[in-house]
Amino acid sequence: MGKRVLIVGGDAAGMSAASQVRRANPGLEVLVLERGEHVSYGACGIPYYVSGEIPAAEDLVALTPEDLARRGIEVRLGHEVTEVKPGARQVTARTADGRQPSLRYDWLVLATGAEPVRPAWPGVDLSGVVCLRGLGEGIALRRWVDEASGSRAAVIGTGLLGLEMAEALARRGIHTTLVGRAGQLLSAFDPEAVAPLAAALQAVGVELALGREVTGFTGASGRVKAVTTTVDEISAELVLLALGVRPGTGLAREAGIGLGRTGAIAVSERMKTDAAGVYAAGDCTEVTHVVTGERVFSPLALTANRTGRIAGDNLAAESLGRVSGQRFRGTAGSTVAQVAGFTVASTGLTPDQARTAGFEVAVFSREGRSRAAYYPGGTPLHTRIAVDRRTRRLLGAQMVGQEGVAGRIDVFAAALFGRMTVDDVYHLDLAYSPPFGPVYDPVIEICGRAGLEL
Amino acid sequence: MGKRVLIVGGDAAGMSAASQVRRANPGLEVLVLERGEHVSYGACGIPYYVSGEIPAAEDLVALTPEDLARRGIEVRLGHEVTEVKPGARQVTARTADGRQPSLRYDWLVLATGAEPVRPAWPGVDLSGVVCLRGLGEGIALRRWVDEASGSRAAVIGTGLLGLEMAEALARRGIHTTLVGRAGQLLSAFDPEAVAPLAAALQAVGVELALGREVTGFTGASGRVKAVTTTVDEISAELVLLALGVRPGTGLAREAGIGLGRTGAIAVSERMKTDAAGVYAAGDCTEVTHVVTGERVFSPLALTANRTGRIAGDNLAAESLGRVSGQRFRGTAGSTVAQVAGFTVASTGLTPDQARTAGFEVAVFSREGRSRAAYYPGGTPLHTRIAVDRRTRRLLGAQMVGQEGVAGRIDVFAAALFGRMTVDDVYHLDLAYSPPFGPVYDPVIEICGRAGLEL
Repeated sequence: MGKRVLIVGGDAAGMSAASQVRRANPGLEVLVLERGEHVSYGACGIPYYVSGEIPAAEDLVALTPEDLARRGIEVRLGHEVTEVKPGARQVTARTADGRQPSLRYDWLVLATGAEPVRPAWPGVDLSGVVCLRGLGEGIALRRWVDEASGSRAAVIGTGLLGLEMAEALARRGIHTTLVGRAGQLLSAFDPEAVAPLAAALQAVGVELALGREVTGFTGASGRVKAVTTTVDEISAELVLLALGVRPGTGLAREAGIGLGRTGAIAVSERMKTDAAGVYAAGDCTEVTHVVTGERVFSPLALTANRTGRIAGDNLAAESLGRVSGQRFRGTAGSTVAQVAGFTVASTGLTPDQARTAGFEVAVFSREGRSRAAYYPGGTPLHTRIAVDRRTRRLLGAQMVGQEGVAGRIDVFAAALFGRMTVDDVYHLDLAYSPPFGPVYDPVIEICGRAGLEL
Repeated sequence: MGKRVLIVGGDAAGMSAASQVRRANPGLEVLVLERGEHVSYGACGIPYYVSGEIPAAEDLVALTPEDLARRGIEVRLGHEVTEVKPGARQVTARTADGRQPSLRYDWLVLATGAEPVRPAWPGVDLSGVVCLRGLGEGIALRRWVDEASGSRAAVIGTGLLGLEMAEALARRGIHTTLVGRAGQLLSAFDPEAVAPLAAALQAVGVELALGREVTGFTGASGRVKAVTTTVDEISAELVLLALGVRPGTGLAREAGIGLGRTGAIAVSERMKTDAAGVYAAGDCTEVTHVVTGERVFSPLALTANRTGRIAGDNLAAESLGRVSGQRFRGTAGSTVAQVAGFTVASTGLTPDQARTAGFEVAVFSREGRSRAAYYPGGTPLHTRIAVDRRTRRLLGAQMVGQEGVAGRIDVFAAALFGRMTVDDVYHLDLAYSPPFGPVYDPVIEICGRAGLEL
């Protein structure tokens, strides 16, 4: 009888693991249990689906259960795993129709993802107070939006998802208020970098209600009517909580599988947990930060896909009595997002994170241009870097601008992986042409400036 | 009496040197001799000035002689230096009005640039057969274009400048034929990568006449009328030669200053020549290639600016009895250009260059996408890399696409400076968001593929 790999969770990490197991050892049975009704979808596309830029939910789905079955991967939807018994190599699930099947495994991959933070504010259980956890919630939200033109919504949280969703709702004709505790959007960024973006969000119709704490929600007939804050009351028929996520570790914790200091599942570079036969991958795990070497919780799509693939490859190799060459080399926490015509991006440590990590931090901010000064259409490009004074090493970068941000943040990311100093980055031979930047690119320019001033 | 720095050539390298000398030792007299009528202009912007995208020639000029005088830099235009005497620390110039002033110096910077290749084809001296050497020629060409709508032009040479200029002329209503020896444009690129670009150039009105050798030019009354080739005769009232450049080393050679094996002026990492008190910078010098460690002739704007600055800093330090921290760290030959809606870019070695340099080369080509598959508006992105089979080290990359090329080539450039293997690049944490790329970015994807297949 064939050996079975059981995978809990069918999004980025879980499906990457499933596919890699199939590729690396086709002799294994691969069974994916997914509590929702979709697998293998692009979660990062949900804001664009809600906004209507992406017409159908199916567009976000890379592979259906039928596609996957043809590739030898069995998917069971509507299966919420309720218990893992590592000793017995067995899990129990609960299905939508009330069954509680038990399933044995030879190897297990926990890809239970992350859970949106949902504070216990009074009224948080009212209907209409929602989180975006997966595609199911995205579909429900889009359905509401499709019929709610002219309604009022509040988005709580001024991180990237909050901004993306506020823009999406406003563009669909919803009167949208973005509510935040800090006095500015994206508090990890320079205030002057974020100011034009805030104005652009307002220009697409988002009202900003910053500098106030949510105290709860009021409703009628069980449905939310308003958000109450320390400053005011904001009417809303829909409230979207975008307050970040935490690792989905309930199953692992109850099974006695070790968690790390971040609260996420502790794994090796090969994505093995401390339980025999159990791997974990994606947003439920903690990974090593490439700058600090510390374990961090860094729930990002590429890391989820990559750690899933690495878990699958190592699991398959183990099943064949081999050793995989694939190990996870570290995250830089690199992010980029498009908001109201601006691109916002970050890689490595913010100045605050760098100080917390014990570096002696020098911070440099510059406003550069996206094109040569004489070339038409250029726009400002705000860059900030954090540098270690002792070693002159680059620790992180944040950028905001209307074009040319995504590529440049990736140059900084490559520099972080190369453990480059600002002098190293200053000397990079970046490609120059007037439509794409000044001859001394903003990446080079800020590092040259830092090198002189350090 | 103050010590004098004489700088021969007033474009990127020369003016960078001049400015850096002023910054680093304001006690020095700085005198720039420029044979043309302009200094301190963006030569890379000339195609956009000819096309009209940049309205006025003055837009390309960063600093006028008057601006420079206020900064303590004296510029003499129309001064062609005819002789350098390193022993006597003296140069002789020839002015437009026939004078032949001799000038002493304490330190000299040769920034004599590069000269367009102008083969001795029959008829090459006919009026209307032009090269783009500097802004003066750009202004003359633009003047012709402004009055020549409906005329015919031929551009000889299918490198980046040839393509940029052919597009610029066609967009101005000139019937333009692009003539090349090779059967494809940009012969350093994959044929399938370049095919859509060729079609796009044709769509803006450029006629392609490839796979033929120019044999000469015919004319009437001293003015060019046609290009003759091994295949046909191409009518043209204007012929632009875009056949590459060679280092402008006549002065240095006659002065007995050492040239390198590439034929350009040999310099140290501090941009010192073998003659006492003589520095050189920019397109007249050879520099070290970051991948091979060999000396190469790599006439590019950033290197010209950077080596000028380094020459100036080292010269100023020498004048103060100090040692500058600035050394040139190497070129990757990184280029990028915008042609007919496509971006074409290269960094490091092409497969042919890598083989010539003695590497055991593996070549990988992939067609990726500029955005996530489900995100609207994405376009193909053609990437090719050369990898050293023995060490798995990345040696170079070429990319062609309609968006997202410039930033990605710079990630490859950073990887080259970091001496990264394809495995290193595969593991980079690049920032992901659907509008900017797939979750496994084409940069990561092709290196992962290479890592598996090597």
